[in-house]
Amino acid sequence: MEQNNENVVAKQETVISNTSGKPPASKDSVVNLDAGDPTMYESFWKGMGDQGAITISSSQTISYFSDVTNFCWFLEPEFAREIRRLHKLVGNAVTEDRYLIVGTGSSQLLQAAVYALSPSDTPNPMNVVSAVPYYSTYAPLMDYLRSGLFRWAGDACMFKGDAYIELVCSPSNPDGFLRQAILKSGGGKTIHDLAYYWPQYTPITSPADHDISIFTVSKSIGHAGSRLGWALVKDIVVARNMTKFIELNTIGVSKVSQIRAAKIVKVVSDSYENPIPENPDKLFDFGRRLLVNRWKKLREAVKASGIFSLPEFPSETCKFTGEKAETLPAFAWLKCEKEGIEDCASFLRSHKILTRGGSYFGAGPNYTRVSMIDRDETFDLFIERLSSLH
Amino acid sequence: MEQNNENVVAKQETVISNTSGKPPASKDSVVNLDAGDPTMYESFWKGMGDQGAITISSSQTISYFSDVTNFCWFLEPEFAREIRRLHKLVGNAVTEDRYLIVGTGSSQLLQAAVYALSPSDTPNPMNVVSAVPYYSTYAPLMDYLRSGLFRWAGDACMFKGDAYIELVCSPSNPDGFLRQAILKSGGGKTIHDLAYYWPQYTPITSPADHDISIFTVSKSIGHAGSRLGWALVKDIVVARNMTKFIELNTIGVSKVSQIRAAKIVKVVSDSYENPIPENPDKLFDFGRRLLVNRWKKLREAVKASGIFSLPEFPSETCKFTGEKAETLPAFAWLKCEKEGIEDCASFLRSHKILTRGGSYFGAGPNYTRVSMIDRDETFDLFIERLSSLH
Repeated sequence: MEQNNENVVAKQETVISNTSGKPPASKDSVVNLDAGDPTMYESFWKGMGDQGAITISSSQTISYFSDVTNFCWFLEPEFAREIRRLHKLVGNAVTEDRYLIVGTGSSQLLQAAVYALSPSDTPNPMNVVSAVPYYSTYAPLMDYLRSGLFRWAGDACMFKGDAYIELVCSPSNPDGFLRQAILKSGGGKTIHDLAYYWPQYTPITSPADHDISIFTVSKSIGHAGSRLGWALVKDIVVARNMTKFIELNTIGVSKVSQIRAAKIVKVVSDSYENPIPENPDKLFDFGRRLLVNRWKKLREAVKASGIFSLPEFPSETCKFTGEKAETLPAFAWLKCEKEGIEDCASFLRSHKILTRGGSYFGAGPNYTRVSMIDRDETFDLFIERLSSLH
Repeated sequence: MEQNNENVVAKQETVISNTSGKPPASKDSVVNLDAGDPTMYESFWKGMGDQGAITISSSQTISYFSDVTNFCWFLEPEFAREIRRLHKLVGNAVTEDRYLIVGTGSSQLLQAAVYALSPSDTPNPMNVVSAVPYYSTYAPLMDYLRSGLFRWAGDACMFKGDAYIELVCSPSNPDGFLRQAILKSGGGKTIHDLAYYWPQYTPITSPADHDISIFTVSKSIGHAGSRLGWALVKDIVVARNMTKFIELNTIGVSKVSQIRAAKIVKVVSDSYENPIPENPDKLFDFGRRLLVNRWKKLREAVKASGIFSLPEFPSETCKFTGEKAETLPAFAWLKCEKEGIEDCASFLRSHKILTRGGSYFGAGPNYTRVSMIDRDETFDLFIERLSSLH
């Protein structure tokens, strides 16, 4: 009986292997770029030395409650303050008159948002859709509990009807393009997944101002192991129901993670607003510098191979930096153009490069997604191996 | 549309008010003992000074992955080691040849266990039952997503059939008694919720050895704000499916919380195994000392009132301390015996004492649950106010 969940499990997002999260041990090791593990930020944080370190005493964070005067009673005030400050600094989201909810990563917040927007009294579950190519986790996240409240209904472009929730991931995971909602029915709802709307990945053109915007600590500042995300929500009833979901699901969110992340986010904002001469490094500048270099190397290797192609992006002025900036996605959405190679991920796997195949994203197997935010040694070996293919 | 979850929300466990988590401000303040917020442990941890403090650098816990050689890839090895060590010290659970899974509190692990034990291919959801009085969270936890995999089916004593999962909470929340599974069908499954099977609450009579045993950091060592629990599981397929649930639900568990909790648990074990003369205080002794005193005061106040009664427990020899020990539950299951008072929680609420009424636990309104693990000032004011009732 215990094996009956296999079909659900098989569709799951994170494919863990014994090479996940580790740099390759030697030149002919497996290069694992399947997950979006943001380990490229490790060297930045090592360079920050003691600045982001925090000491927590054993008598802190004992109670369940963080701030019972707030509707989101498990939100640490210091974390809330630093998140609002960061958005103001970067200019990527409107925070005034928005309700802030903390979650155990953005996955929990996505479930909370879908729960809050789904009526509990209809015979049919709400349809949750997203335009192809959509983030590979959306489908299993909506379906793993076979909820009577909501269900995955696939590609937004193919959907007909009024009762839906559209997930809009912008910039898009996997392909990096900015996205807008496809469906426009008055009865429909949208949830914006803005995990990658940060200046290292894309020019910031205007502050996001949606009904529900979801962000994550993993991709903004690189701290995936903290399991923290947040949502900005316009409507108090939706915000309260999202809070109820998290209350039931995990009775709140780690206070230890929140207090620690508040310090880390503070270091990022301070580096821009109150820079110290001894350490002029800044997170978004660091990320952009690395990604400029990596995308350049990748485009060269792809061009030389004659096998693959990559999306092309327009440059725009970034309001955060004030400069013209390229789009430098956290993932490369690689297309195999060579005849005879139908499955791009399988082809790369045969060369010991692990990526996530297009079918996970509702696209063809000629596409595959490659993480661009892993450690230097992993990325460099990837480029070296890719360059040897022809 | 957003308001349609109200009926689900109304059944939820934690009733948050602006007095939750706070000591009363004055003699006539509301005394909130509704939740089981373990703030009585704050004074213990304050007394430990620097011993449990931890410094975390900003370059730690960046990756999603903790240990990819373990099936539970998000389990921090140091946390796992200290949990196994603590069980060995206390003698309350068999850990040899058991799979260890970390969760975002025991609520997440309960959902993970029910998910792992429910077949995905049957037309009817699995029935989840527990004997009355059952923990108030079980019903909403099983039903809030209207899962097609499992559903709450109420009192185990009333259940007929072969397809079920029985939740066994022992010692029981709310009433403190040790429990065994009620149902004995070969097709049924059991999950043991052992949140309170620790020597401050109950004599440890033998190491627990069940298919699935769930524990929590909140009630064992008092750190609810860490949002951490763990499960000991016999079957690898069940353990893998529980891991998959947590992978989908929150992509793992805060590494920051785990690393910090490992240190805190280490301090507890060290105080017994390698005591330091400067600070001889020990967590389980501290907890027992406080609860002996509180239960004595409560029994006196209850006796003097003539309105209420409390369960009576046998004393047994605790194998951990080697001494005869009373049962001192984390909650008092108070029964109103006075004619004319039908709703015990309402009666207490009229005297500004917030407790959780019996109906939340499948019992009558003549019962109510009172937390015994709050701060001294809250408990003392509760006793003072209770003593004034007649």
